[in-house]
Amino acid sequence: MKKNDNIQIAIEKRIQEEVDFLNNMSPNGLYAPIAYALSNGGKRFRPRLLLMAMEMFSEVTNIGLDAAMAVEVFHNFTLLHDDIMDGADLRRGKETVHRKYDANTAILSGDAMMIYAYKKLEGLDAVLQAKVQQVFTQTALEVCEGQQYDIEFETRDFVAIEEYLEMIKLKTAVLLAASLKIGAIIAGANNEDADLIYQFGLKVGISFQIQDDILDVYGDAETFGKQIGGDIVSNKKTILMLLAQKSASKVDGKLLEHWLSKEIFNKEEKISSVTSIYNSVGVREQAETLQQEYFDEALESLDAISVSVARKQPLRTVAISLFKRNV
Amino acid sequence: MKKNDNIQIAIEKRIQEEVDFLNNMSPNGLYAPIAYALSNGGKRFRPRLLLMAMEMFSEVTNIGLDAAMAVEVFHNFTLLHDDIMDGADLRRGKETVHRKYDANTAILSGDAMMIYAYKKLEGLDAVLQAKVQQVFTQTALEVCEGQQYDIEFETRDFVAIEEYLEMIKLKTAVLLAASLKIGAIIAGANNEDADLIYQFGLKVGISFQIQDDILDVYGDAETFGKQIGGDIVSNKKTILMLLAQKSASKVDGKLLEHWLSKEIFNKEEKISSVTSIYNSVGVREQAETLQQEYFDEALESLDAISVSVARKQPLRTVAISLFKRNV
Repeated sequence: MKKNDNIQIAIEKRIQEEVDFLNNMSPNGLYAPIAYALSNGGKRFRPRLLLMAMEMFSEVTNIGLDAAMAVEVFHNFTLLHDDIMDGADLRRGKETVHRKYDANTAILSGDAMMIYAYKKLEGLDAVLQAKVQQVFTQTALEVCEGQQYDIEFETRDFVAIEEYLEMIKLKTAVLLAASLKIGAIIAGANNEDADLIYQFGLKVGISFQIQDDILDVYGDAETFGKQIGGDIVSNKKTILMLLAQKSASKVDGKLLEHWLSKEIFNKEEKISSVTSIYNSVGVREQAETLQQEYFDEALESLDAISVSVARKQPLRTVAISLFKRNV
Repeated sequence: MKKNDNIQIAIEKRIQEEVDFLNNMSPNGLYAPIAYALSNGGKRFRPRLLLMAMEMFSEVTNIGLDAAMAVEVFHNFTLLHDDIMDGADLRRGKETVHRKYDANTAILSGDAMMIYAYKKLEGLDAVLQAKVQQVFTQTALEVCEGQQYDIEFETRDFVAIEEYLEMIKLKTAVLLAASLKIGAIIAGANNEDADLIYQFGLKVGISFQIQDDILDVYGDAETFGKQIGGDIVSNKKTILMLLAQKSASKVDGKLLEHWLSKEIFNKEEKISSVTSIYNSVGVREQAETLQQEYFDEALESLDAISVSVARKQPLRTVAISLFKRNV
């Protein structure tokens, strides 16, 4: 993914315009936190996917940029409210909205932010708007469902692999998929192609989340950008943990339970012991196989779209570059 | 307003269907709180206005009922999130969502509830949907703005009468007005009539809020259904308080400041003293004049709508019955 290509430049410019606009809206106490949340960097991956899908089927338009803002505003709204729920202090190295302001401001500005996302779809022709919005609304509900499952899983004793995959699908993958599909719809793609690009996004998203779980244990701290083993320390029910719980020998299973229930422990010791169990069960290989399956299915969907191979190349390149993150 | 007429019956039936539907959605942890919030009674005033507007211009349809659900779901979403911000324990005598469940559930279910409101508009024909939704989205943002002003006013030393009127307009009146306008649009009213019915709702709403402030001090506890003088006890910046601060003599003004800054006091004494100041300044009459002006303007807008007098009668009756609440 080039950082300074036309699409990225157009997105950054448009976001800056939105931020400036929001900062001038009254009451400032409502809109400034939205501007703050939206200006907090990030890869702008969802609007980028939306516009890349447009380019695959025709070309990027101003109306497309509006829709790209809708998905980016919505995504940042979910982060804003998630940060309240998680009690998170920092987001991309900056104070979260509820810390910089307060929880009530974060709730109310978040609400206005979500409504504002819908406003960004108003420029579309009515028939297109109805079509796009059906995808948008369904996806927005699913993202809430994913967040709810994620919260519920934290306190549940047992989570099946299928439930976990459904959760990451809802919480993350559907919005990537919907961004692509909305771009395709606006660019005039037929229903079949719009569904195929949705499937491509969905599978890439799930594959990406599985990879994220793997990298948290087996990644390189510097390239990964997070502390290695953080998920193990916090008892997070990742795909690795669920696979280990499912397939561990009796001895390993008991040892795993021991570490999961231990309240006071040496972090390094816990990470190293649990990783050893993972290694003896072979969960990394299982997870990588699963990830590869989703990735292959994603590319199959991309291949089946009825445009030239050349037009598909940019999205293929993005998918491959995601998959090839340094382990 | 008859409680058992056709419109009311249709609304209650439809709400029950929504509640049943939501209670069967997964994850239940996300959707049951929405069903709970929606099933918590209330006058269903907004959907009623929407459907009465439809009847004024043509007739109530199923699609109209969907839109009526959209405004009612949205309204209850705002109550749900407002209750978190206010730390309220009870809503219409029942536990608030964040007390019955928890704050995180209330935030997330509230988010899903707002998205669900948008979903209720999907049955409309695309051109109508775009038109209705523009009103809906603008109104939803304004309701957030009103809530923000309301929060800010609590900690401000001075609030101008005009600012207060703008706040109650945004926080309450615009949604009543929008409900009527949406009903009119769906029923095929022309733009001028849709704007007139909006103005009618806006003015009735402001008039109603001013009356609410008056009744809090001068109402009959039993008919009003709230403790008399509650606003005085909590130093709420009502229209009476702002008028008193604006027009009080030097002596009354100082006495008012004394009561506003006193942290430990006898409630009855404070209510009685502040009411005496109100009486000596004559704020009740000033507020009633203001209320009457808005009410007259409301009826002027209603009169100007291009349908027969008979068709306007039901909404006129509702407006008059609101205005004639027992003092």
